[in-house]
Amino acid sequence: MATLPLVAIARSEEVKPVEVYECIRSRVTVRSFKPDPVPEAVVRRVLRAGRWAPSSRNRQPWHFIVVSDPQMLKRLGEIATSGRFIADAPLAIAIVVDDADRPELDAGRALQQMELVAWDEGLGTCFVGLRVEEQNRQIKELLGIPEQMELVTLLPFGYRTDDTEGRGNRRRPLREITHRERFGDPYIDE
Amino acid sequence: MATLPLVAIARSEEVKPVEVYECIRSRVTVRSFKPDPVPEAVVRRVLRAGRWAPSSRNRQPWHFIVVSDPQMLKRLGEIATSGRFIADAPLAIAIVVDDADRPELDAGRALQQMELVAWDEGLGTCFVGLRVEEQNRQIKELLGIPEQMELVTLLPFGYRTDDTEGRGNRRRPLREITHRERFGDPYIDE
Repeated sequence: MATLPLVAIARSEEVKPVEVYECIRSRVTVRSFKPDPVPEAVVRRVLRAGRWAPSSRNRQPWHFIVVSDPQMLKRLGEIATSGRFIADAPLAIAIVVDDADRPELDAGRALQQMELVAWDEGLGTCFVGLRVEEQNRQIKELLGIPEQMELVTLLPFGYRTDDTEGRGNRRRPLREITHRERFGDPYIDE
Repeated sequence: MATLPLVAIARSEEVKPVEVYECIRSRVTVRSFKPDPVPEAVVRRVLRAGRWAPSSRNRQPWHFIVVSDPQMLKRLGEIATSGRFIADAPLAIAIVVDDADRPELDAGRALQQMELVAWDEGLGTCFVGLRVEEQNRQIKELLGIPEQMELVTLLPFGYRTDDTEGRGNRRRPLREITHRERFGDPYIDE
């Protein structure tokens, strides 16, 4: 009895309902939100999810600015022409990186973890790029971001409306993008 | 009876065991693996997770090359001096992007989803950067990657050994990296 493989038993009995795979499979990009505020406890979960991401050389170069003041959100939506819907979101988080080895890669890993935890909480988001130099400058000024830091994106968040459900997530077939051992031999024929 | 709010009832009864937050919280970087092969069904889940990532302008610029031939893995570990442990992994997936608007950001979002699903399956990985130009060139040649495409990383995968458990995920305190409305006012004091 002393040698019972307890870990193995526990694992085989593990139930996996709405787990990470299902979260990833069901997530879609969302540009309109319910007006309901996002509770601070939920915001914290989202922030922690970003912070737990891996980063190049473990530099953890991220800064997250949480904006929920309606006037600030309105102003952000006015400046960021590719993300006017920010004005109508109850929350936005600016992702800033400081002295990163690979800034966009590190940002991408953190924000994806944030998006997935947010999705699991019933929220949606849409990546807003800020590559028009003048818009980027104005937002950095508005949010007080130090000049040497890089503002990668503004992520608006809000509870999803019903029309998000079942919208699906269309993608290129796996046979076009997967390869076995060398580029050109499909890994999966689907 | 015809107007019973069925969706709301189903939601309130939803159980959330090992869900996405817990997966993100527990994940650590892994550089040594059990020799056991990774079943194709698991590899497919990981590939699908990458494919479901969002991408800039929805370009879906990814290619994934699945390498499990021991001779290929050995050769990859010889070339990639920052990832010699690839030689001892049962599997590696090369992440390649083609004509991407924001290649590193798109790669980061896809690979993070892959890493999380892999973690959920009992696997671990470690990002191997390939920024030494000559090493990158040699690996592209070995894997037959077209010249115009960008090889972002090789991700070795394998089942985690027991010494991964409980290793924790140390990070900078949230008060240093979170801000309320403007940069400089901590969002969370923890």
